Amino acid sequence: MKFRGVSGIITKNKNNINCYACFKMMITGELVKNKIIISKPKEVGRLYNKSGFGKSLSGNKLELDLLEGTFLLAEKKLKVFYNKKEIGFQNLFEKAAEKIPDFEIKYLVFKDLRNRGHAIRLYNKLVGTSFCQIGNKKEKTDFLVSVFSEKDIFDIEKTSDLIKTASKISEKIWFAIVDDEGDITYYEVSIVDMKGKNKEYVYKKSDAVLFDNRVIIFDKKQAKDLFEKEFYGKPVNDGLQISLLEALYLQDKNIINIKTVNDKKISKSSLKQMALKVQSDLNDYFFVFKNLKKRGLIVKTGFKFGTHFRSYTKNPDETHAEFLVHVLPKDFKSIWSEMSRAVRLAHSVNKEIIFAKTSKNTIDYIKFGRLRP
Amino acid sequence: MKFRGVSGIITKNKNNINCYACFKMMITGELVKNKIIISKPKEVGRLYNKSGFGKSLSGNKLELDLLEGTFLLAEKKLKVFYNKKEIGFQNLFEKAAEKIPDFEIKYLVFKDLRNRGHAIRLYNKLVGTSFCQIGNKKEKTDFLVSVFSEKDIFDIEKTSDLIKTASKISEKIWFAIVDDEGDITYYEVSIVDMKGKNKEYVYKKSDAVLFDNRVIIFDKKQAKDLFEKEFYGKPVNDGLQISLLEALYLQDKNIINIKTVNDKKISKSSLKQMALKVQSDLNDYFFVFKNLKKRGLIVKTGFKFGTHFRSYTKNPDETHAEFLVHVLPKDFKSIWSEMSRAVRLAHSVNKEIIFAKTSKNTIDYIKFGRLRP
Repeated sequence: MKFRGVSGIITKNKNNINCYACFKMMITGELVKNKIIISKPKEVGRLYNKSGFGKSLSGNKLELDLLEGTFLLAEKKLKVFYNKKEIGFQNLFEKAAEKIPDFEIKYLVFKDLRNRGHAIRLYNKLVGTSFCQIGNKKEKTDFLVSVFSEKDIFDIEKTSDLIKTASKISEKIWFAIVDDEGDITYYEVSIVDMKGKNKEYVYKKSDAVLFDNRVIIFDKKQAKDLFEKEFYGKPVNDGLQISLLEALYLQDKNIINIKTVNDKKISKSSLKQMALKVQSDLNDYFFVFKNLKKRGLIVKTGFKFGTHFRSYTKNPDETHAEFLVHVLPKDFKSIWSEMSRAVRLAHSVNKEIIFAKTSKNTIDYIKFGRLRP
Repeated sequence: MKFRGVSGIITKNKNNINCYACFKMMITGELVKNKIIISKPKEVGRLYNKSGFGKSLSGNKLELDLLEGTFLLAEKKLKVFYNKKEIGFQNLFEKAAEKIPDFEIKYLVFKDLRNRGHAIRLYNKLVGTSFCQIGNKKEKTDFLVSVFSEKDIFDIEKTSDLIKTASKISEKIWFAIVDDEGDITYYEVSIVDMKGKNKEYVYKKSDAVLFDNRVIIFDKKQAKDLFEKEFYGKPVNDGLQISLLEALYLQDKNIINIKTVNDKKISKSSLKQMALKVQSDLNDYFFVFKNLKKRGLIVKTGFKFGTHFRSYTKNPDETHAEFLVHVLPKDFKSIWSEMSRAVRLAHSVNKEIIFAKTSKNTIDYIKFGRLRP
């Protein structure tokens, strides 16, 4: 494997802020109390006005933070001096790492986004976020960036809280996860309003038979109706095999009577007890199923995609399942790798992944969207 | 969604056994003590000799089990009588479900494999398997089939034991997982001998600096060598950022001295302690990493694919990572959906997924291969 060059390649340039690559001369700065001070007015203008680096000081000086300094030094745009001696990359990197928490991952994300033409700076006004986009005169910033390491723990409750708070001050929230190799995976996270166009129909009542954790409706007319109108279950011979969840739902709506193979009636509560034995988190799962149905979506197992559900906004004849929905209790935590797997798989099959965070009476549908910044 | 027809479509025909679809006349059988007895010699010949159904009885009679009977009845090839009255599909299905454990999922898999041209029958000589292939005169059967439901629990230890036992009597082991909708996902599972062609090189010794859970080697020559020869880490400026695992490994091999940003030496044991804090299952993980290196593979993070590692048998310049390797402790259990997600993702990026089951001194590399039976 060839040791690749490290100079930045400018791929985009947002907000008409010129990129550091345009600097033709080497800028010099002085390290003073963990800041780098730029004194030449021409250089201040280049860095601050053209590229959005640093904080303007009185006397037309500019103060760069250690991250900006390390970045510009690595890109060979800046020389940093301390007591008239030049400081090297390693030295400044180590100094920055001592002062800025999680510096080594922030550095990689900052470098990557700057090289893609995004003007960003460190942001510390909202816990959980690392950078904000700059140079936008609108009320809200374009985006905030939260930076994580592959080994960090993903916490659904914190994520949902962060999205709610951050969306008041920023149009978008980007998550940047730095893997063990230093590669970065970006997601645009948001809370979405799930809505579909499917109606619920009225059916006559029929019997259905429970076999372990599946139910079969042998009534031909009912089987055909449920399948054709709302895509319940799957045909088996002339009958319809439905899942335990669908059975619970149809029983709740008094569309089916569930019986054992010995023709004994199974009550709503005892079916639920049985289902709970098969799946201990059934209640959360059923809560989301019912909520999605109410929102006009068709909900089927997402097993093949490793999620709880796949979901259709329109009739499955007209569309593929647009969403994969995975139910997570509000105290859910996991390594980021698990999340990465779910998101990557969804995107590889061209679907949106939605994590349904369930609380007692509410569901937050959190979308992890594709993002190529 | 249109209620689809249910008659079988023959897609393949293995072992020169003719398929039931060739029967032109309706066969009749009699239900006797949970078996279906076929008495007409011509019909016996058709079912048994041509299609491998049933068990031959004295007097040139044939005994079908309830699964075979239900299947042939549903396919409209067989009429079943009890006390001279014809029995319908629902009736026979319910009877079969009472006698055969997990009948409803076995039925779906049997139907699917028979319709694909595979001659199989119920098999009860090995716990954990459901069907064996028939009509093969060789010492080993071609394949055994284990049937699971989406809601069943996957157990890595049982899986590994099953593969070891089953492979003594069968060439292949197929897993068939029936999802809530009745759709079937097949895997060919096997224990594989992981082998690569990468060599390990000798390096001079250099310093490396620890930042949180990453390590940077600032020595240019060393950075270049480690990256170009064995694809360690990732270049950052002129240095090399390596993962904590790579750092542990290179420290173990006395290739790097690890220090803090304040230039204090970090011993092997204290680096391991730190790493254990970041990742509690580090020991299993490191065990697999070292073992794969010894086997000539290059091992990098599999974060983007949601697995612990991705692995190259040759130089990454010549090949993509062929394997995704996920480490599972020997007591690992999970819902099948998790497994499905990992396998599906691996296959969607054209890689093989390997679950590395770790015990105290051994690792079983269990492959879940693509299978379209």
